[in-house]
Amino acid sequence: MMTSLSSLSIDHTHDPALRSWVSGANDETTEFPLQNLPLGMARPAGQSGAFRPFAAIGAEAVDLIAAAALGVFSDELAAVLRACEGQGLNPLMAAGPALRRQCRHALVAVLDEKADAEWPGKLSAALVSQSSLEFTLPCRIGDYTDFYAGIHHATAVGKLFRPDNPLLPNYKWVPIGYHGRASSIGVSGQQFHRPLGQSKAPDAEVPSFGPSKRLDYELEVGALVGLGNAQGTPVALAQAEDHLFGLVLLNDWSARDVQAWEYQPLGPFLAKSFATTVSPWVVTMEALAPFRRPFSRAADDVQPLPYLQGDTNAAQGAISIQLEVHLQTAAMRAAQQPPHRLMRSDFADCYWTFAQMLTHHASNGCNLQPGDLFGSGTQSGPASDQGGSLLELTQGGKQPLTLPHGEQRTFLQDGDSVALVGFCEAPGRRRIGFGPCVGTVLPAIGAA
Amino acid sequence: MMTSLSSLSIDHTHDPALRSWVSGANDETTEFPLQNLPLGMARPAGQSGAFRPFAAIGAEAVDLIAAAALGVFSDELAAVLRACEGQGLNPLMAAGPALRRQCRHALVAVLDEKADAEWPGKLSAALVSQSSLEFTLPCRIGDYTDFYAGIHHATAVGKLFRPDNPLLPNYKWVPIGYHGRASSIGVSGQQFHRPLGQSKAPDAEVPSFGPSKRLDYELEVGALVGLGNAQGTPVALAQAEDHLFGLVLLNDWSARDVQAWEYQPLGPFLAKSFATTVSPWVVTMEALAPFRRPFSRAADDVQPLPYLQGDTNAAQGAISIQLEVHLQTAAMRAAQQPPHRLMRSDFADCYWTFAQMLTHHASNGCNLQPGDLFGSGTQSGPASDQGGSLLELTQGGKQPLTLPHGEQRTFLQDGDSVALVGFCEAPGRRRIGFGPCVGTVLPAIGAA
Repeated sequence: MMTSLSSLSIDHTHDPALRSWVSGANDETTEFPLQNLPLGMARPAGQSGAFRPFAAIGAEAVDLIAAAALGVFSDELAAVLRACEGQGLNPLMAAGPALRRQCRHALVAVLDEKADAEWPGKLSAALVSQSSLEFTLPCRIGDYTDFYAGIHHATAVGKLFRPDNPLLPNYKWVPIGYHGRASSIGVSGQQFHRPLGQSKAPDAEVPSFGPSKRLDYELEVGALVGLGNAQGTPVALAQAEDHLFGLVLLNDWSARDVQAWEYQPLGPFLAKSFATTVSPWVVTMEALAPFRRPFSRAADDVQPLPYLQGDTNAAQGAISIQLEVHLQTAAMRAAQQPPHRLMRSDFADCYWTFAQMLTHHASNGCNLQPGDLFGSGTQSGPASDQGGSLLELTQGGKQPLTLPHGEQRTFLQDGDSVALVGFCEAPGRRRIGFGPCVGTVLPAIGAA
Repeated sequence: MMTSLSSLSIDHTHDPALRSWVSGANDETTEFPLQNLPLGMARPAGQSGAFRPFAAIGAEAVDLIAAAALGVFSDELAAVLRACEGQGLNPLMAAGPALRRQCRHALVAVLDEKADAEWPGKLSAALVSQSSLEFTLPCRIGDYTDFYAGIHHATAVGKLFRPDNPLLPNYKWVPIGYHGRASSIGVSGQQFHRPLGQSKAPDAEVPSFGPSKRLDYELEVGALVGLGNAQGTPVALAQAEDHLFGLVLLNDWSARDVQAWEYQPLGPFLAKSFATTVSPWVVTMEALAPFRRPFSRAADDVQPLPYLQGDTNAAQGAISIQLEVHLQTAAMRAAQQPPHRLMRSDFADCYWTFAQMLTHHASNGCNLQPGDLFGSGTQSGPASDQGGSLLELTQGGKQPLTLPHGEQRTFLQDGDSVALVGFCEAPGRRRIGFGPCVGTVLPAIGAA
């Protein structure tokens, strides 16, 4: 049993002075300096070959199987990376945190500007521009679980229904979550038709079926499971970090009118299952190490039950990620206006850590598998202009947002693109980013 | 686009006079006469080879890949069956109903006692005793959706909480469902540890964490999806049957105390995700054709919205399956007492058909995939002694059941085995059965 939480340790790969010989990797604005090295699955755009594992560096990406052939990795790691071809990162996930850390260290060793002089020439065959690549999901997602750990979202949404008592009695005890739909998860660039569904207007006698009129996004952070656990074998909180592979951005598109009518008593179903968008690059737990923060509950707040408490978790349980939602309407796109930022929040405000969510999830013996996806729940900030969904920003659709060029929105209209943005900053640390997570609403299914 | 609902048509393979040369296949008591031919994945017990597709006949099973090598199937079907090896029935599911029907007809042609005299000898190499086999799940289940279409269950459970208004307002309009956990689904014979979880006693100030004290089963029918649909492309009700592959029995084990505390507002989560048991043999839609029944709503009942209504569905939408739950406690097993039947119900009482559930599921554009599993929801009958769970049979744990040998149960105890039974009978038709669906409760996780 591993006892060290490798994901929390900071080493030379986090040194802000570290620079790469890859062009663009040292730009102040890049999301992918040498300190990041997120992993994803891609292939040359427009080709039909199998997707292969890549790591992002600056505006380029390293083909990891090509790099393995050049001797960058150990034989063991090379074999695991080759097993990812056409399959997703699942074999690397299943191999555990030590091999993932080995991958990071090996890449830093050859991409460092102080690396042996042979490497830039040798690796040129394995380096391609990210813009020349087509991405797919980073892994096969067996099961997708969406949590509800954004307390400011839960409070804001609860207030719309129960102004005096917004949080349900279980909220501060249970990392609330539900099973989501895995098949309709797509990677950034996903376009989907406005869903049809049943809804019932408050003043209507009976429900009707048609295009959703209250289509929304939800700003979430996704966590991908690395090591799994056997059925019937829980994961203690002290070991939970060893089962986390890395994080992505996640847009949990939601049809609010469908949700309101269908969700009692078994929870959201078709209101969410039409599409979910994630970013293609997985920012590993190692890359996030410098941005960990103490996790604690105010002394007068509810304290977690013992199975969800632990010293290590308290010391570095939270992760500070600046999260933003940007909206670009069809009119803005036509006028070449850039997406407009609607809000910003910090993932450090999340009420439960992913380690707690994982331990809770496995506490009944449920087997988690490499590649399983957790959503964090909507990450709103404490202020009313920090809502992570339009439901919050427009007070349930009652107060339209006015965009800078004059358009208004209560909920999403056809042609709207929503981009999630995530990045980590800390004093004396190199800024890292999550890359794109964009999705676009097409006209309703069957619409002319 | 296919327009004929092959699953509804009765042909010579349903002739009750049809007899097989396979020993045991014509016994009155067999669940697997020639008219059934359910499909599953198995391998010789105790060996480590890949699981292969089999069809059950009497007490034997036909190794379909071996049969293919003997020339039983077309080249196309043989290739699809070979693709199932180590993968599950998914390739056959994805191939659509025509090839599945072809498989049935080809098997009947060679197993019929009127088949060419060469077949019994030739096929002996492909026939093995079911008792010599080890089974696995019939397919890779990408997503598992559990519906709530048993209206007598929904009413009985609703009454425990809301005596005057047991069904929520959406129940008769929406085929209510939620996403379930796919990873913990196991095949008959599954043993699982009593789950740990959070619960809060009504009189307790705060919740506690420990072994569930209200562990229950739920009697359900499972449907496996054959043909999938592309994301953004709904399935009209008239085509829905073409996307159904076949049915299994399904036990949706439930920890009632965990469920009561966790389920608001997002539905059941850890109360269900520790284990779900299905039967290994998939009874195909073709085998079920003689047991179809008109589906209709009483004239004074709520009528489905147009997308869930259709002539074909109304004509033969329901399926009559006799369903039973049998309980064997550890004491009964030690005393070699057989399992005791707790109840019986008829799947024809289900409030929504699987075709309606499928059309509803895909109505928002959600992509269903070959091998996806639907649960029907608990299939209780209208009478109070027809509850499909202990929650119902014991009035929420208030009225213990007394078993014939004197033991009592409110909820399940360690060592209890629950066997679901399903069979179809109709005048002038050969009776067919679903085979075993048994699961056993082990002591709680971590218990000595």
